[in-house]
Amino acid sequence: MLGTYIENVRNTVPLVHNITNYVTVNDVANIILACGGSPIMSDEPEDVEEITAICGGLNINIGTLNARTVKSMLAAGKRANELGHAVLLDPVGAGASRLRTNTALKLMDELKLDVIRGNISEVKTLARGSGTTKGVDADVADTVTEETLDSAVDFVKAFAKKAGCIAAVTGAIDLVTDGETCFVIRNGRPEMGRITGTGCQLSGMMTAFLAAGPEHKLEAAAAAVCAMGLAGEIGWSRMQEGDGNATYRNRIIDAIYHMDAETLERGARYEIK
Amino acid sequence: MLGTYIENVRNTVPLVHNITNYVTVNDVANIILACGGSPIMSDEPEDVEEITAICGGLNINIGTLNARTVKSMLAAGKRANELGHAVLLDPVGAGASRLRTNTALKLMDELKLDVIRGNISEVKTLARGSGTTKGVDADVADTVTEETLDSAVDFVKAFAKKAGCIAAVTGAIDLVTDGETCFVIRNGRPEMGRITGTGCQLSGMMTAFLAAGPEHKLEAAAAAVCAMGLAGEIGWSRMQEGDGNATYRNRIIDAIYHMDAETLERGARYEIK
Amino acid sequence: MLGTYIENVRNTVPLVHNITNYVTVNDVANIILACGGSPIMSDEPEDVEEITAICGGLNINIGTLNARTVKSMLAAGKRANELGHAVLLDPVGAGASRLRTNTALKLMDELKLDVIRGNISEVKTLARGSGTTKGVDADVADTVTEETLDSAVDFVKAFAKKAGCIAAVTGAIDLVTDGETCFVIRNGRPEMGRITGTGCQLSGMMTAFLAAGPEHKLEAAAAAVCAMGLAGEIGWSRMQEGDGNATYRNRIIDAIYHMDAETLERGARYEIK
Repeated sequence: MLGTYIENVRNTVPLVHNITNYVTVNDVANIILACGGSPIMSDEPEDVEEITAICGGLNINIGTLNARTVKSMLAAGKRANELGHAVLLDPVGAGASRLRTNTALKLMDELKLDVIRGNISEVKTLARGSGTTKGVDADVADTVTEETLDSAVDFVKAFAKKAGCIAAVTGAIDLVTDGETCFVIRNGRPEMGRITGTGCQLSGMMTAFLAAGPEHKLEAAAAAVCAMGLAGEIGWSRMQEGDGNATYRNRIIDAIYHMDAETLERGARYEIK
Repeated sequence: MLGTYIENVRNTVPLVHNITNYVTVNDVANIILACGGSPIMSDEPEDVEEITAICGGLNINIGTLNARTVKSMLAAGKRANELGHAVLLDPVGAGASRLRTNTALKLMDELKLDVIRGNISEVKTLARGSGTTKGVDADVADTVTEETLDSAVDFVKAFAKKAGCIAAVTGAIDLVTDGETCFVIRNGRPEMGRITGTGCQLSGMMTAFLAAGPEHKLEAAAAAVCAMGLAGEIGWSRMQEGDGNATYRNRIIDAIYHMDAETLERGARYEIK
Repeated sequence: MLGTYIENVRNTVPLVHNITNYVTVNDVANIILACGGSPIMSDEPEDVEEITAICGGLNINIGTLNARTVKSMLAAGKRANELGHAVLLDPVGAGASRLRTNTALKLMDELKLDVIRGNISEVKTLARGSGTTKGVDADVADTVTEETLDSAVDFVKAFAKKAGCIAAVTGAIDLVTDGETCFVIRNGRPEMGRITGTGCQLSGMMTAFLAAGPEHKLEAAAAAVCAMGLAGEIGWSRMQEGDGNATYRNRIIDAIYHMDAETLERGARYEIK
């Protein structure tokens, strides 16, 4: 069932507007191209409303936010909302500073978001309305494990319900829920955490999936998470002696480039709770 | 004949000042190094005039323009003009928003450009003085094919003549003309469109070729287009099972790194119209 | 002895705050992850003090400075100083423009720096308080060779003593000194100069080494220089026919990813003067 969502992207080639950080932006662009979408980056207030209007989805990532780009996030988000486009928020580092936390909360407040995709520490911060995280990575104390799974599912469902959008919380186990149904996903590899921006890449690709599958956003979001994790597995299987995180980054994007519906269908490992 | 132009770059190591987008900037820097040039990036109004003064060429790319960097583009361009340096404009996304279209037109108006390098949709926008494009990629309706080639050559020649500079319009078939002579180039592979920034990379490399071959700018620009396309062919021939667009990106830059005059001479596929 | 410093990074996973250029930032993030650290990028004045407070080290790189980020460099630096964090300055292009030279001098003046890491032309500029460099690469006239080694060691020692910090001057031969002891390091390969950002990467990684080994900063800085050079040698040994600078960039980061204390210990080639 999830396999069709990558096919949708390849068939419809959605344009994705990204207001994202300058650290991982090149990989975000290449993974959107790899999955069949078309990326465009624009972060100037005067430019973003027109650019988002010609796109099908908007990916907002606060990883290297500044006063100017926060304005653009709000302006683009409102225009995308008016047009009924898919809007995703990646609250990078929410909890690590007041500016990040408050910006994410403001975006949640002023925009109709379709998905919030982050790690568990960021989402806990947003649930509390404040908080601390260890930089841009999830705090170990927060990690979703088999032991804490049931309570984590309950927490993320409650967050999604309260936020009024899909929550996609990624880590060793990924949870994607609209508040009712929760995909518990076990694709991926721990080594993906040693590459900068696998989360940012997922957010960009997920926006393409959402834009291409707007009638079934929960499934589209879950399919993107499975695709990313599966690409991590396929990419890892192609690693040779001496290859490290720089090469692994390329192999993951390469795996998305070659992923078809059948590969995703067979490789997706999830249960529904 | 075109082979000498890459040799010129390797022999003179021109410094290229880039005011370019943050999406593909790393690849632009690496391909300039690969072809024998030396890149420097600076986009602050207070900094750009001095930086451009120590360079031999200026590459202006509006891919992620903002109010501050547009000022820098104008200031650097004027200084480069005063010094007689090669100046190239890559009007990324002209037609997709008024800011992009108007900025490109303003740069054409206020600067003496040596080359405008873009896709056919962007160049049509600039020819009209307004327009719409599908994001940052060429619109299918605009594509230069064997069927539309003659009228496309006429159009691009007329544009170059009116703009008073060389036009380098890249796509499935590439056209490089000063308004009189038109190089029709058939190097390259369609898969290059699945990598972000092959156009930006070409603009950066072309500026190095122009700076190193200022007496024959048309030939230098055409040589850069042939080199990029040929690198796409060589890079593709080195792809292994499972390799995708991330790896292909590296292989193209690697192919430029190893390209010598003889390889370019033998591999360049063009006719003159 | 130097091998332990990479082990320190892997054991303590220091968070490194980077205010760095957008050209090479992705590679900086990936090499910090590769050596065992955790990178975070933030360059907005309102954000940087809180972000730097949760980190263990601050890497300031002026490669694409602007008025806003210069403010952030000063604010973050002062906060990092208050907290006793390691602070490194990479004065990219000092000497190429007044803004760059003056910003580097201002940062030296207003901050307590632990290390200044640059090429010999940049450091000569800072020693003079003014100067010219050929873009962002060292001027040939300045190069440290076996013939000029003794006078270069004297010069860099005097600079470090006057600046009151460690100076790490990298090139064909690298010099790392606190003004008394000078590590003369002969790791590395000339082809590393054909990749954009190997210096920036070293600065990011060195900050992780400093944060993880604050009691022995000179040795930590020297270990980072040896590690980078050794990674260049290991990466080069894995190059295959047709590989160029794009692939080499990945192989160097990959080599850091796999480097352990023993490999660094055995591979480090240095003498003390």
